[in-house]
Amino acid sequence: MAEVIDLAGKLIACPSVTPADAGAMGVLADALSDAGFAVTRLTNGEAPDGPIENLFATRGSGGRHLAFAGHTDVVPPGAGWTSDPFAPEIRGDLLYGRGAVDMKGAIAAFVAAAAETVDEAGQLSLVITGDEEGPATFGTVALMAWMAANGIRPDLILVGEPTSSQRFGDTVKIGRRGSVNMVIEVAGTQGHVAYPHLADNPVPRLVKALAALDAWTIDGGDDWFQPSNLEITSVDVGNPATNVIPATATARINIRFNAQQTGQGLIDRVQAIVGEGVSVTGRISGEAFLTQPGELSTLVAEAIAAETGLTPEFSTTGGTSDARFLSRIAPTVEFGLINATMHKLDEAVAVADLHALQRIYARIIRAAAAG
Amino acid sequence: MAEVIDLAGKLIACPSVTPADAGAMGVLADALSDAGFAVTRLTNGEAPDGPIENLFATRGSGGRHLAFAGHTDVVPPGAGWTSDPFAPEIRGDLLYGRGAVDMKGAIAAFVAAAAETVDEAGQLSLVITGDEEGPATFGTVALMAWMAANGIRPDLILVGEPTSSQRFGDTVKIGRRGSVNMVIEVAGTQGHVAYPHLADNPVPRLVKALAALDAWTIDGGDDWFQPSNLEITSVDVGNPATNVIPATATARINIRFNAQQTGQGLIDRVQAIVGEGVSVTGRISGEAFLTQPGELSTLVAEAIAAETGLTPEFSTTGGTSDARFLSRIAPTVEFGLINATMHKLDEAVAVADLHALQRIYARIIRAAAAG
Repeated sequence: MAEVIDLAGKLIACPSVTPADAGAMGVLADALSDAGFAVTRLTNGEAPDGPIENLFATRGSGGRHLAFAGHTDVVPPGAGWTSDPFAPEIRGDLLYGRGAVDMKGAIAAFVAAAAETVDEAGQLSLVITGDEEGPATFGTVALMAWMAANGIRPDLILVGEPTSSQRFGDTVKIGRRGSVNMVIEVAGTQGHVAYPHLADNPVPRLVKALAALDAWTIDGGDDWFQPSNLEITSVDVGNPATNVIPATATARINIRFNAQQTGQGLIDRVQAIVGEGVSVTGRISGEAFLTQPGELSTLVAEAIAAETGLTPEFSTTGGTSDARFLSRIAPTVEFGLINATMHKLDEAVAVADLHALQRIYARIIRAAAAG
Repeated sequence: MAEVIDLAGKLIACPSVTPADAGAMGVLADALSDAGFAVTRLTNGEAPDGPIENLFATRGSGGRHLAFAGHTDVVPPGAGWTSDPFAPEIRGDLLYGRGAVDMKGAIAAFVAAAAETVDEAGQLSLVITGDEEGPATFGTVALMAWMAANGIRPDLILVGEPTSSQRFGDTVKIGRRGSVNMVIEVAGTQGHVAYPHLADNPVPRLVKALAALDAWTIDGGDDWFQPSNLEITSVDVGNPATNVIPATATARINIRFNAQQTGQGLIDRVQAIVGEGVSVTGRISGEAFLTQPGELSTLVAEAIAAETGLTPEFSTTGGTSDARFLSRIAPTVEFGLINATMHKLDEAVAVADLHALQRIYARIIRAAAAG
């Protein structure tokens, strides 16, 4: 069995549902050592979200420093699989198993690509976490802190998330939207509806605030992002009485925002719009990022075109990924397998796609070293 | 013991918490028979809101027909009374007991006034229900239906509710505001906040509807009423997820309205303001009523002034009363004891006020007959 398929299978066989490692990092460390990497394993955090197994591996020196980032943890399999989700099985042209596309398959492809390019690569690193599908508290952020403390800073970062949509190779992600949640609260004075002058109804003030937020055009989007969008997800007063003016009124909003915005900037603007006397409490789930199309995206697109014949779309859609952290230190793009079955029953990858992904990653490694 | 104090005490001794009668109507029927009235007792309704004991009594003929309306039922006493709420007790100048002011005391005063005016009154009736503090379904409305079926229609109606505020005699009610509750619902299509084009968020549409309702000036009030007032009492979406656009959004409003409005008219106007696609469901708690100041209110005010030296204010404030029903068939005003302790612990009436109320009611009886 080819190295990429063998390694993907060994990784799938580890039931590494976040935050469990279940041996996955050991499998990976062995394969990387065999390919000439110096491997550092880092355990971070405490229960219940940890401890988390993380891994940093590096090889070579000189030229540009390319880092591949990914995660060995997977989401729970759920019930109803055709075969054991943690017993990799090839049926027809497909390799089945939890993590096949998200993203143990891509890790295997990159390790195999690294193994075949020992003499052609510059400095090459892998930044692998076991905490991407969970709170992401003890994973990539902790690895980046360790890298900074050790003076390690890649020049280019490739995240192996499954970005392909309809056909393998059709999509490269060059950015992601951010997400921020806010709670908007208005306090008033309770009273009887028959005597409103003795009370202060908070609901009309909340309604005015929400109407102003709904009328707000945050931005117009740009070449790479759709406009930032605000949704009022809930309004709750919870007043059971028909004859009582309530004391408080609360709403919740979510903003999905492009790289023109920051989470804190949006919290500040919302506070300015709703005005004094209305409380705004924000929680930033993830900042937006954008790697402007340039050398890195061109290099990746050319590798994809050479192997698949497709010109990939540069996209910024979808949820968050660890690229939101990594993009702070170097240009970052994401490219990987077809995401149709990720997080679903019978997650599966085409064996041919794994081989093609290995070839694409090898082209990227060579091109990065040559640049 | 004077007749008015004796009868008030006997009525208080009946624990007639709605819908219980507990002997109150029997006490009253005996006293009215003694005063020359023909008494008809009517039992209406079924559990759980009934059966309800009601009473219609009439005496005399000719001249104008004055009806006194009231209720023998009381609200629950609650715990913490100084003396047994259903054991009438005079301490100092006050008679204590549940119903002393609301409104067994006023019933006793009217019966005593009727007893002393046998030869001076025209047709005189009492319309007494045991269902005023409850849903009012099987009480005054049922009595009015029976009266209509028997061709009985008073010319003037005096309701004995405790209308006095700071000093006995300071306030006559010539009207009451109405009350209507509405549920406003907007249906949308649930979806993920990251893909709003695939969903239809109902919250902004509800917010627009509520903003329009909040900006609505229903009317400017008039000589006798403050402006009608709308309060948004609750808004509820109940969406627990921060990343989901909800399927429905609901608000509740209450309008306290003056006699320029009707409950159904307001429901129709709210529907017109919120527009199509927004559901409005209304429930009318009570219509407003106004008896324009005229002969009846003047007659009552003159009787009050003669006994107390006060010129009573004509008021339309406060909650609803059965006058909202009775005013449909004849001019109706309300006058009674000081309401400071009604529905409270240690409800009490000044013994002197009961005597004064008897004298005022006797003056009203004589003036009505003479008019």
